[in-house]
Amino acid sequence: MTPARPAPDFTALFSARARRMNASAIREILKVTQQPDIISFAGGLPAPELFPLEEVRRAADAALTRYGPAALQYSTTEGHPPLREWIGARAGIPAANVQIMTGSQQALDLLGKILISEGDTVLVEAPTYLGALQSFQPYGPRYVQLPTDDGGIDVDALAELLQTTPAKLLYAVPNFQNPTGRTLDAQRRRRLVELTAQYGVLVIEDDPYGQLRFSGEPAPSLYELGLEYAGDVEANHILYCSSFSKTLVPGLRDAWVQAAAPIVSKLVQAKQGADLHTPTLNQMIVTELLDEVLPRQIETVRRAYGQRAAAMLGHIGEQFPGGVQSTRPEGGMFLWVTLPEGIDSTRMLERALSRNVAYVPGSPFFALGGGENTLRLSYSSATPEQIERGIAALGETIREALD
Amino acid sequence: MTPARPAPDFTALFSARARRMNASAIREILKVTQQPDIISFAGGLPAPELFPLEEVRRAADAALTRYGPAALQYSTTEGHPPLREWIGARAGIPAANVQIMTGSQQALDLLGKILISEGDTVLVEAPTYLGALQSFQPYGPRYVQLPTDDGGIDVDALAELLQTTPAKLLYAVPNFQNPTGRTLDAQRRRRLVELTAQYGVLVIEDDPYGQLRFSGEPAPSLYELGLEYAGDVEANHILYCSSFSKTLVPGLRDAWVQAAAPIVSKLVQAKQGADLHTPTLNQMIVTELLDEVLPRQIETVRRAYGQRAAAMLGHIGEQFPGGVQSTRPEGGMFLWVTLPEGIDSTRMLERALSRNVAYVPGSPFFALGGGENTLRLSYSSATPEQIERGIAALGETIREALD
Repeated sequence: MTPARPAPDFTALFSARARRMNASAIREILKVTQQPDIISFAGGLPAPELFPLEEVRRAADAALTRYGPAALQYSTTEGHPPLREWIGARAGIPAANVQIMTGSQQALDLLGKILISEGDTVLVEAPTYLGALQSFQPYGPRYVQLPTDDGGIDVDALAELLQTTPAKLLYAVPNFQNPTGRTLDAQRRRRLVELTAQYGVLVIEDDPYGQLRFSGEPAPSLYELGLEYAGDVEANHILYCSSFSKTLVPGLRDAWVQAAAPIVSKLVQAKQGADLHTPTLNQMIVTELLDEVLPRQIETVRRAYGQRAAAMLGHIGEQFPGGVQSTRPEGGMFLWVTLPEGIDSTRMLERALSRNVAYVPGSPFFALGGGENTLRLSYSSATPEQIERGIAALGETIREALD
Repeated sequence: MTPARPAPDFTALFSARARRMNASAIREILKVTQQPDIISFAGGLPAPELFPLEEVRRAADAALTRYGPAALQYSTTEGHPPLREWIGARAGIPAANVQIMTGSQQALDLLGKILISEGDTVLVEAPTYLGALQSFQPYGPRYVQLPTDDGGIDVDALAELLQTTPAKLLYAVPNFQNPTGRTLDAQRRRRLVELTAQYGVLVIEDDPYGQLRFSGEPAPSLYELGLEYAGDVEANHILYCSSFSKTLVPGLRDAWVQAAAPIVSKLVQAKQGADLHTPTLNQMIVTELLDEVLPRQIETVRRAYGQRAAAMLGHIGEQFPGGVQSTRPEGGMFLWVTLPEGIDSTRMLERALSRNVAYVPGSPFFALGGGENTLRLSYSSATPEQIERGIAALGETIREALD
């Protein structure tokens, strides 16, 4: 080789879009917390010891036998027909209104890609799912934060906002939200659906956790309410995303969107350019698991996460000083802690790590900033013993910060 | 349900980007040609009867045993470390310069996403791979077509063009190009690498077929020449994409990019927003197959495609009327037919279908139009008998069109 020439200035060649992308704050934190002696409540990982490993092994085998080489060939962009049919039947809509996606993350990316022009107003919960912000960000949205409380989005504030602020999209995680674990109140759901319909705002309903309710009463999805309101699948303004990542396993990357035909057909065009199709075998594996394994697995996960959430809340009650508040999730994987004003959870993280416990500071979940005194805890993949020791260590850390 | 309300005007809400997306012309044609009695040279499918089905079955089993639940868990955006290491070692570069992708289509999409700002000039072969146009199109490039001949891109024309036209990117398929089957001449490769380096143009080298050479002498990749020219992996201006879709199986969607660190780290950010990571199990399956199955499989596919190409060219020589020209590919899956001027291959398709043979008209492969008298034939997944009958039927169709 000749001596090295100067490198091209790659970053100067990046698109305007690329300049809006950032390294995920959480990702950087997670790297630190992967050291073996750290008890991490930081990640958002489903419990791997609950994965139906042998069932997936048999399903892969069965799919390869059933479909032969077709299980490994290119397949349609829309998705594996029996999988779309099952999803459609469960939702009471035609399979044609179901689009398979390579994980919910792709659903968010491609919905953002086909809908968000630079400067379009996108309404998001404060706080909201960080991955959605990462998907939408390159497309140049203007975020407006919606205030939330323990019942989810404050719909009175939404009504007031819509009177003066034309918006294209509202993004929400109504069930056991990431990061807060909160659930949108049933009455508010109806009002949100009506308001957004009346103001011509499309709603992206992100529902990865809906099946993982371990207490309380299920509320209808925004999609179901939108269908009821509109009277027809083609008039429903709710775009529903869900996934098998939290109910079965995340590593196969199988998810879907339910939406009206014009949205689905534009998603098909977008997905052709993005990855042609979701891996064929993976869709067939999931399809093999739908009837027997999925319901059983949902029960297993619900029960386990319910116990872990209860354990964490119990220890929080005992170990955290007064003035610290926590949400009480009825499902999902996360709870949300609000520290007394003035404590900065980002600065506190270093002290927590020195006590071998990790969490994610809350502020990255706010599209426009805020929440410096909040943090997210995940209970999904921690053992009872880790929960006990970790919450005790976190309690000490908070007490120290209060001094 | 209440009577249906009017549907929202979804298409009016599409982003400017979405308006640039189109249904693939080929996709629409392929739908027609899937009728069972049609001999289709239209698709670009690898031969499914050659897929290492049992080996994939065993590899899935082995990966699930070796990694347990981790084979089904979320994994890193960069990709499965042993797979990145193997690819890096083969290319003589660090694993850190390898990014795993969910199919080459994702590589093209995310490279377009991070590099193409609206109005940026992208140089493409005339004709070029349609899937690349589909990936780039939403990002608003201004295409400039490079003239090509049997040795690939005309580098003298490129040199002249670069004197007056500032370009950001050049996209090329140097080996057995889709759609023409042509290979870029070795001397021209060197010149192309030097010219683009001197003018500060990044090159996306798309190389899905490079391993599938069945005659002639291999030429170094643009990436290798770029490395030689630059003297260092971090100064190489070639961004190399390849895939296991054509050498192993396409349905697992495993591909990769080799590039300098700033490109890889921006691709990581883009991929986090796009699909988080390529399915974990799929990367592990491919990794299990690298040492023994992949080399054997490449030999099998090479031999079969070589025989099929020879058979197709033989029948073309016998059956097509004078004045019809065909490329003579030395590898890959496609050849390219140029009809006498004045015959429109799009209009001729209906007559071909009435004789139960299908192809893809050439004009959609031209970013800026042209090639109305050209067409693409795929020999990869046709039997000798289908090739004989199909080429005879196509010969009759052409003769009829000439009358």
